[in-house]
Amino acid sequence: MPSLNRQVRVVTRPTGIPQAEHFKIVQEPGPAVGEGQILVHNHFVSVDPAMRGWLADVANYAVNSKGHASGAIQIGGVMRAMAVGEISGSRHPRYRPGDFVTGWFGWQDYCATDPRAVVQRVPPTELPLSLWLGVLGLNGVTAYLGLSILGNLQAGQTVIVSTAAGSVGATVGQLAKLQGCRTVGIAGGPVKTRLCVEEFGYDAAIDYKADNFAAALAEAVPEGANLYFDNTAGIISDALRNHMAIGGRIIICGTASVANWDPTPIGPRSERYILTRRLTVCGFIAFDHADQWGEAVENLLPLVRQGKLRYREEILDGIEQAPDAVAGLYRGENLGKRVIRL
Amino acid sequence: MPSLNRQVRVVTRPTGIPQAEHFKIVQEPGPAVGEGQILVHNHFVSVDPAMRGWLADVANYAVNSKGHASGAIQIGGVMRAMAVGEISGSRHPRYRPGDFVTGWFGWQDYCATDPRAVVQRVPPTELPLSLWLGVLGLNGVTAYLGLSILGNLQAGQTVIVSTAAGSVGATVGQLAKLQGCRTVGIAGGPVKTRLCVEEFGYDAAIDYKADNFAAALAEAVPEGANLYFDNTAGIISDALRNHMAIGGRIIICGTASVANWDPTPIGPRSERYILTRRLTVCGFIAFDHADQWGEAVENLLPLVRQGKLRYREEILDGIEQAPDAVAGLYRGENLGKRVIRL
Repeated sequence: MPSLNRQVRVVTRPTGIPQAEHFKIVQEPGPAVGEGQILVHNHFVSVDPAMRGWLADVANYAVNSKGHASGAIQIGGVMRAMAVGEISGSRHPRYRPGDFVTGWFGWQDYCATDPRAVVQRVPPTELPLSLWLGVLGLNGVTAYLGLSILGNLQAGQTVIVSTAAGSVGATVGQLAKLQGCRTVGIAGGPVKTRLCVEEFGYDAAIDYKADNFAAALAEAVPEGANLYFDNTAGIISDALRNHMAIGGRIIICGTASVANWDPTPIGPRSERYILTRRLTVCGFIAFDHADQWGEAVENLLPLVRQGKLRYREEILDGIEQAPDAVAGLYRGENLGKRVIRL
Repeated sequence: MPSLNRQVRVVTRPTGIPQAEHFKIVQEPGPAVGEGQILVHNHFVSVDPAMRGWLADVANYAVNSKGHASGAIQIGGVMRAMAVGEISGSRHPRYRPGDFVTGWFGWQDYCATDPRAVVQRVPPTELPLSLWLGVLGLNGVTAYLGLSILGNLQAGQTVIVSTAAGSVGATVGQLAKLQGCRTVGIAGGPVKTRLCVEEFGYDAAIDYKADNFAAALAEAVPEGANLYFDNTAGIISDALRNHMAIGGRIIICGTASVANWDPTPIGPRSERYILTRRLTVCGFIAFDHADQWGEAVENLLPLVRQGKLRYREEILDGIEQAPDAVAGLYRGENLGKRVIRL
């Protein structure tokens, strides 16, 4: 049993984006491993935009379509998070100390849990362990499954991606490119748009913060986009209104650009735009497709190893970085998948 | 050649809903039939909510996905309309005088046209000719194809329909019921909601104009709706926000409740609602599926004959009724498919 366990707990429920003040760091005795449980020693914990939704006191992302409702996070509890770590103790026959796993282990050093919290076993590779939280974890799997289940892509089509330099977005852009599509990334600021083109191979990248955003968008997709992989919603999506091809598809995977959904913010109505362009707009949450997670990783892993699928990480050091880390995502300060090394 | 042809022409382009003042009735010599053309003597002409869109000076309904762009109606021209009539002259080998056809013959007595304007041949039946503009025409075909192409219905599911007593809506409700679904209709006022239940067999009908609309909706769909067949958009659709089942589908087929789309009106943003409920929202326009029109009619015709598919018509007498007839639809004054007998 570890002697001490540092935890990031939720102190108050945020309205909108979680800030440092909504959390506190506590130290408690390390957990005991119950019968049938495993003890995971977290090496890296994830920081995800979706944490805003998990903290909201309403039905959200973490409630999956098969009814495995995790519900809103309880006040006073450890912050829900994906983590990757080593099994340091086991009272379960199928898990051995020394094995590495990812799962719902929370923002803490140690997690004693039923193995149902495990998302995947991490095979031994030469790759950094942190990738199993990013390009080989939730972000990469979201991109892969979103495209394969809903994208219906054909070579030669045009794909627009918002948060194009982010962990999900960059993977979407590269996978679409590998399928022979023309890819256009939308990102905030010149550093990210340059990254889109130079690192992630987008055919064009557009800065939504620039004055010429609307004109640049019109120039980048003269024939209209067949797929818009939307991680932002809000005014970025509004701008795409006149740039979807007839019969195009929109996959809504995140709503990062809208700070607060309670009460529901207003914006241009979309019904007639969906009708006249015969669009299909779908919500997509990777957790609904847990049975395809393994297939996604099997396809992503060789691409990462061969250097065909590039990624960026931003590794913060120490659990004390956690409380402000989600707010930082929404400030757009990270370049690459944000993880915390414990 | 007929000696006189009365026509309803478009005088000015409406902003929003077309009113009587946007049209004028003129009388001109009957048209000559050119080589390869047919001359159709219209018996009934149709009045459709979609006419608002056809008159708008922007991409609209009548531009289909295969690029057969009809575009906006030209000012000074005859109002575009579906009509059913008898061929009274033909210089085309495949059409004979005495045949009945439906097609894009316009609000006028006679139309000399290339046969490409024909939508379907009307087989001889005991049924009223006007039905080929309603339950056996655009409205019925829209309902049938919308459900069969995008509905993905299974017995036991719950289906909500807006403009539930209208020509499209009533057909959707009955077809869904025939497939074993529970059907809930939304309509305006007690006369229409009673019609929904007594005539069209909805399991429940809700008056969106009533004070208890929200509560009645919650009571009618306690488990959430699997399909919302939306003919209205706007505040009726907003009210459904919390009543769609996870993984539900919304077919947007019309936007009748929103008077003007230029500039785009504002309303509650839908992105997060689509995401968290994993909805699929699709625009549907029957003209995109012209190749399936025949199949639709083959399925609808026996249902109408056997009395399994009921319909209501409102027949206005005389071409002088036409100019105000579209505005009347938006005032909600009709009970049943509105057609004009010439």
